[in-house]
Amino acid sequence: MDLNEINPYVLKVMPSAMRKFDHDINVDPKIIKLTLGEPNFNVPDHIKQAAIDAINDNKSHYPYYWGYQELRDAASKYYRDKFGYDYSADQIIVTVGATEAVAVTVKALFKPGDAVIIPTPAYPLYNATTTLNELNTLLVDTSDDGFILTPEKVQQAIDDHPDLNVKGLILTDPNNPTGVAYSKDQIAALAPVLKENGIWVISDEIYGELTYGQKHYSISEYLPDQTIIINGLSKSHAMTGYRLGFIFGPSGFVDQIAKVHQFTVTAAASIVQYAAIEALEHGQDDSKPMLQEYEKRRDFVAKEMAEAGFDVVHPGGAFYVFAKIPADLNMDSWAFVKTLAKEYHIGLMPGDPFGDNEYVRISYAASDEALAAAMKAVKQLVADHTEEPTK
Amino acid sequence: MDLNEINPYVLKVMPSAMRKFDHDINVDPKIIKLTLGEPNFNVPDHIKQAAIDAINDNKSHYPYYWGYQELRDAASKYYRDKFGYDYSADQIIVTVGATEAVAVTVKALFKPGDAVIIPTPAYPLYNATTTLNELNTLLVDTSDDGFILTPEKVQQAIDDHPDLNVKGLILTDPNNPTGVAYSKDQIAALAPVLKENGIWVISDEIYGELTYGQKHYSISEYLPDQTIIINGLSKSHAMTGYRLGFIFGPSGFVDQIAKVHQFTVTAAASIVQYAAIEALEHGQDDSKPMLQEYEKRRDFVAKEMAEAGFDVVHPGGAFYVFAKIPADLNMDSWAFVKTLAKEYHIGLMPGDPFGDNEYVRISYAASDEALAAAMKAVKQLVADHTEEPTK
Repeated sequence: MDLNEINPYVLKVMPSAMRKFDHDINVDPKIIKLTLGEPNFNVPDHIKQAAIDAINDNKSHYPYYWGYQELRDAASKYYRDKFGYDYSADQIIVTVGATEAVAVTVKALFKPGDAVIIPTPAYPLYNATTTLNELNTLLVDTSDDGFILTPEKVQQAIDDHPDLNVKGLILTDPNNPTGVAYSKDQIAALAPVLKENGIWVISDEIYGELTYGQKHYSISEYLPDQTIIINGLSKSHAMTGYRLGFIFGPSGFVDQIAKVHQFTVTAAASIVQYAAIEALEHGQDDSKPMLQEYEKRRDFVAKEMAEAGFDVVHPGGAFYVFAKIPADLNMDSWAFVKTLAKEYHIGLMPGDPFGDNEYVRISYAASDEALAAAMKAVKQLVADHTEEPTK
Repeated sequence: MDLNEINPYVLKVMPSAMRKFDHDINVDPKIIKLTLGEPNFNVPDHIKQAAIDAINDNKSHYPYYWGYQELRDAASKYYRDKFGYDYSADQIIVTVGATEAVAVTVKALFKPGDAVIIPTPAYPLYNATTTLNELNTLLVDTSDDGFILTPEKVQQAIDDHPDLNVKGLILTDPNNPTGVAYSKDQIAALAPVLKENGIWVISDEIYGELTYGQKHYSISEYLPDQTIIINGLSKSHAMTGYRLGFIFGPSGFVDQIAKVHQFTVTAAASIVQYAAIEALEHGQDDSKPMLQEYEKRRDFVAKEMAEAGFDVVHPGGAFYVFAKIPADLNMDSWAFVKTLAKEYHIGLMPGDPFGDNEYVRISYAASDEALAAAMKAVKQLVADHTEEPTK
């Protein structure tokens, strides 16, 4: 059989370079990794117990494809209380993590050829998903606006492509990889241009609970009829491996997405859904101790990286610091992370897969010891590799 | 926003009519359901314990997207021992059940416009998946060949569509909904026409362990370079709600499918993967007691349905009886199942969603009591509703 005969859009996307790099550096037994967006906290005990109870109670049969009614009821209340989401249970789909939520939403809402705006730097999954769905991806660089997408940039993207039907925007707030969290004004400012142009917002709010000293605002408040919210328990309850996400959206449209979901995975795992019910009904404060730790670590990493000569944008949320590599090092992001892994046994993420090859991403959802070792190594690398000015 | 502006292929597919019917009849508190392909057995205790141990051991972090190495090693050995599959761990992807396995395989292998043969009656998921992927679906009726696809029928489908590029076949063996299991000769007979025409076989062998008095043969033995096998633990280990499947395929191609898998779900749930390791390493005989029960129930249901006046093809595998409604009843499959549900509180699946409106499907993965009640109700319905010949 001929590989060139398969789906050309599948050939076109590359496996996640970040997950590959994260996997490849495991060959070094001494490696300390600050690579993936992976809380170093464990799932809270009461949630683990709920999963165990579900196993013991033989909750091992097919859940209804939208997800258990009790879970969607709990999600309706939890996210209303947390962020003011205004969705009833029949506007909520339970998914296999935020990844599936993005995949089925993009598949359902857009036709091949439609254009979708992705502000960069961005989580690489989005571009892969739009490519797999034969969409035109418009990457909009936000680095000169402090990594905030402005309405002017949206309008510019539309104006620059009069031949394209711009139908969507994938927004991540708080942002991965930059850690930037939009203010209420910044979110509100985006609404008019999106409304006027009938642009769907896929609003990935998976880091919504992880903000420091500022509130999270959902664009759904301003654009309820054209927002699909992606959220889930991976970050707020340290449940990455459990794979549990949610889609919130307007009636009628969310029903269409539910069909794609059904024919993609049937349903999220039953025992994980029971864990999620417990998380939402009794785990409203589970993220608080994590948040306190994350905030201390953020302050530490941001300070250390600045001291090492990196430009750091202040991260108001998530658990990443996105730092610009000092020009004196004369290294792009791959050279930097490969040198750091090889010579100093520290794994960071290159900025390149996110769309900015001059930056590195540090995930500070890691132990204090790991962060201290990483910061020491970064400083050592800078000391060892900075090119002396020519005399 | 305008619903007609979304993906037209998504608008075109309907939510699973069988799952909707199964869900809708829950309003009747007295309903006894033989609807879904849902074992009435529980997950074996040693597997449940492995899942619990994984939870307690905080195995809650992102698995590598192909699935844990240990699980893929175990799958390589288990299915080699069971069915002679010849795949190493790097040719195996762990998926969110067989559903995701089908979805990502169809997405990866075929281009929009390619044609795929689906022998009918068939599990409705396949047609939905080919439609969502903008493929031409060629339904090939097998009812006049005892529900076995013949090489002649494959050739006919190709000849009948000279304008189409026939690139795939989705084969289910043992079959859902008919319960028919292909013999070695029947499988071998299909290979030449598929090889000659370069047709991929997506071989759904999820019921492979559930055969009665005959062995399961995989077409991959004859067409290793152009078969993708779908399998999983839902039926063999009664783990439907856990959502754990596998893809086996030739190197190079399976790597392409893995990318789609990664960007669709990231990975199958970590705790479920640990349960699966236990199932494959120590649960080789878990299906045996289930099989003994299923075989007795099959014999009972087939006999009773025949007594009630239904034509029943002998089911050699899976846990379904597919039975032709007596002509005297003058009911199509929907009329039959709705009457049976409404008047007699028994839920069966109509044949229509599978592509044959003259049949009903009985899932006998249910208790003896439920089956006895169902058979009694079917006989009563026949007695109550058979139209008297006009005098």
